[in-house]
Amino acid sequence: MADFDLDMFIRKIPDFPKKGILFYDITGILANPKALAYCIDAMAELYQGSDISAVAAIEARGFVFAAPFAVRMNIPLILIRKRGKLPGKVISKKFTLEYTESEIELQPDDVPVGKRVLLFDDLIATGGTLNAAKELIERAGATVPEIFGVIGLPFLHYEELLTDVTIRTLIQYEGE
Amino acid sequence: MADFDLDMFIRKIPDFPKKGILFYDITGILANPKALAYCIDAMAELYQGSDISAVAAIEARGFVFAAPFAVRMNIPLILIRKRGKLPGKVISKKFTLEYTESEIELQPDDVPVGKRVLLFDDLIATGGTLNAAKELIERAGATVPEIFGVIGLPFLHYEELLTDVTIRTLIQYEGE
Repeated sequence: MADFDLDMFIRKIPDFPKKGILFYDITGILANPKALAYCIDAMAELYQGSDISAVAAIEARGFVFAAPFAVRMNIPLILIRKRGKLPGKVISKKFTLEYTESEIELQPDDVPVGKRVLLFDDLIATGGTLNAAKELIERAGATVPEIFGVIGLPFLHYEELLTDVTIRTLIQYEGE
Repeated sequence: MADFDLDMFIRKIPDFPKKGILFYDITGILANPKALAYCIDAMAELYQGSDISAVAAIEARGFVFAAPFAVRMNIPLILIRKRGKLPGKVISKKFTLEYTESEIELQPDDVPVGKRVLLFDDLIATGGTLNAAKELIERAGATVPEIFGVIGLPFLHYEELLTDVTIRTLIQYEGE
């Protein structure tokens, strides 16, 4: 499994969503069943036997990897979505991302109180959304000992923002 | 498997996202690993041995079911997203949904030309988004012989809009 070249399946799209940004597109992984299976297998190998009670995933690309992982691990999947998307009782967190204000929500009654939750997104960049999500899960009564991203961009310094948590990725890219 | 009571895991939220709408919330399925596994097993049983070459899923709740299904079936997953979310070459379709204009996109180069694609969403209501998605997939060169939704609301008449296609659901609800 260590020989799998995941990079081959990650498309690099310049100037998306805006000029100057190089976008790492994971849809190339989804288009290739072997590449997606590799990611799910690798994640399961990392967390098999750990005492993770649930996985929380950030809308929407995070869902694509976290859902097969939740099925494989036989654990609940908690959705973290933008404001107004989740029905019923929710808790919210506002945060600033690239100079614009954002707000995410989760349904606190689905968070297992006192248990360990793995927080998941497809890509870890500045860590702003993940940091807000971590706070929401903790506010709902669980701990977040681990954050996982398929792709990591450490040159955006997410490790400075995401402290007291183990961060794992399958592949990392360096900036120019 | 036929004995599984999926209804128990679907929360009914009145007046969401607006007054007068009863919202069928699938996050109760995600919170229960047995319920999610039931859905994926049931979908795999329906389409195992069929000649479906890929599954296309509608943002964002559709991703949650379609991704584990794609992994199980070992077929590609194509994302159908709102305008501006998918990078690179995309094709778009505008349509009217409940009096507001909407637009969805897909990456046509990931659609298998001449093959059969299963179109997927978590819930089938009026069928407006699914109908636009079906047209996009067909424009990219594939056929859409089957549409699947975990939940169907036939009282919203989706069968009148979605013609020439087999529609399957795991559970249906009737209006008042």
